[in-house]
Amino acid sequence: MDRIATVETDQGQLYGAVTEDGFVALSHDFPQWPTLRHVIAAGVLDQVAAQATGRAPTHMAGQVRNLPPVPDPEKIICVGVNFPDRNAEYKDGSDLPKYMSLFPRFARSFTGHDRPLIRPPENHTLDYEGEVAIVIGKPGRRIDAADAYDHIAAITLANEGTIRDWVRHAKFNVTQGKNWDNSGAIGPWLVPFTDAAQLDEVRLTTHVNGELRQDDTLSRMMFPIRQQIAYISTFTTLVPGDIIITGTPTGAGARFDPPSYLVPGDVVEVSATGIGTLRNTVEDET
Amino acid sequence: MDRIATVETDQGQLYGAVTEDGFVALSHDFPQWPTLRHVIAAGVLDQVAAQATGRAPTHMAGQVRNLPPVPDPEKIICVGVNFPDRNAEYKDGSDLPKYMSLFPRFARSFTGHDRPLIRPPENHTLDYEGEVAIVIGKPGRRIDAADAYDHIAAITLANEGTIRDWVRHAKFNVTQGKNWDNSGAIGPWLVPFTDAAQLDEVRLTTHVNGELRQDDTLSRMMFPIRQQIAYISTFTTLVPGDIIITGTPTGAGARFDPPSYLVPGDVVEVSATGIGTLRNTVEDET
Repeated sequence: MDRIATVETDQGQLYGAVTEDGFVALSHDFPQWPTLRHVIAAGVLDQVAAQATGRAPTHMAGQVRNLPPVPDPEKIICVGVNFPDRNAEYKDGSDLPKYMSLFPRFARSFTGHDRPLIRPPENHTLDYEGEVAIVIGKPGRRIDAADAYDHIAAITLANEGTIRDWVRHAKFNVTQGKNWDNSGAIGPWLVPFTDAAQLDEVRLTTHVNGELRQDDTLSRMMFPIRQQIAYISTFTTLVPGDIIITGTPTGAGARFDPPSYLVPGDVVEVSATGIGTLRNTVEDET
Repeated sequence: MDRIATVETDQGQLYGAVTEDGFVALSHDFPQWPTLRHVIAAGVLDQVAAQATGRAPTHMAGQVRNLPPVPDPEKIICVGVNFPDRNAEYKDGSDLPKYMSLFPRFARSFTGHDRPLIRPPENHTLDYEGEVAIVIGKPGRRIDAADAYDHIAAITLANEGTIRDWVRHAKFNVTQGKNWDNSGAIGPWLVPFTDAAQLDEVRLTTHVNGELRQDDTLSRMMFPIRQQIAYISTFTTLVPGDIIITGTPTGAGARFDPPSYLVPGDVVEVSATGIGTLRNTVEDET
């Protein structure tokens, strides 16, 4: 399984392959594609990844700092509550909304794998949301759900970290609770998407300090990923590098009574079959 | 008054000055700054504008197609209903929300001056919202309201065009009604911001086919622009080229009974003292 990541090093920002032994920088070989967004737009993610075969690492794990794998997407769109609440499973399903809820996040609201989520001094209701994220490869508008998977270049994970109190600041729109700098994370890497099974039956879990908090399978989404791509592309053109963060299962800290928000020192791990684990610590902003 | 615009021509995308006689291309003189976002980040908008002095136009008006003046902002943030409703003026003010409502728009949801707003086939409730937009010059996080104007490089206008039915698709978040490709416009140009009076007492109007529909002054905002910059920068770092669209007065088409939505052939003009007029026609998507 190819794992393609973007990192910061003392030599600047690089992309390359993550192997068992370390990080194999590849971006120097492809100056025509400065970031993975350009690689994806050129349709050469697989070919770039293949360059790592047989190469020794250029950097040990400790020599790189992870960034979100696509550091410069045109847009990041998140799908709101998209898994059945365990309470709702006992109802007749009439509460199912007709349309999905969507909200954008700015790229700077996400950090990379193995880096701290930042709890700001203004508010301490920092919460986790484990999710699978897709990266658009082929551009499109009004994409048919049946063709939607053809538009996905790669998949990854997101911790859609949220300052809960601030999502309720405004009557409409969760914008300000969802966009604190470095409050979430994307990573650990991109996995090229070649087979529907990489999404359709994936199990998604979130652990906090080793304790299982979220656990569901993507097949239970109320608005499946094919439908997300079709609906979103009705109004906006999806372009290479765009990221859709596809929804979180029940079990975020806000659902506990009392709520169980993240505190400095916590370790949050979002895992999905076939992708890996996105791990982040929590730190207070300094 | 300097007027700095971005246009498309047969030679590609250019920026330059708009004079009485036409368009004076300046971007060829500054290859180190490919777009006005880079010019603003370098803090040289005034110096670039000054290069146009005494020069003959390089293009006649008909030879250029306007783009939003900053074609590639990192983020565009819109402030929700921010002027007192005329009905609300008779109440005691207790309805005033504590925090402003914010929502992002993607750059591709905006076209330029003198180009058509696009009404999509899926829904015909296209509506106008005339607004003043500010462009961030100096980056900052947790900016004091007292210093906020120091962070503005330029001002312009926006028609924050909306597909009304789609803002109500989701219980929360107006995302999908606010982000149809080319449903709104930004322009006609940037005016460098040098004096608080350029914003504080500005009169903002919107005309549809010559009929006055919106008319208010920025001093009546519920959340003034200084406060917008302070609040938004609490959670996200504002960077050069970022755009804040500061709110629309009462009088959009949805407020009429029955609603008066835009139809092909309509002409919408958003005007503000000291900035100019952003004019757009309306066309059905082809």
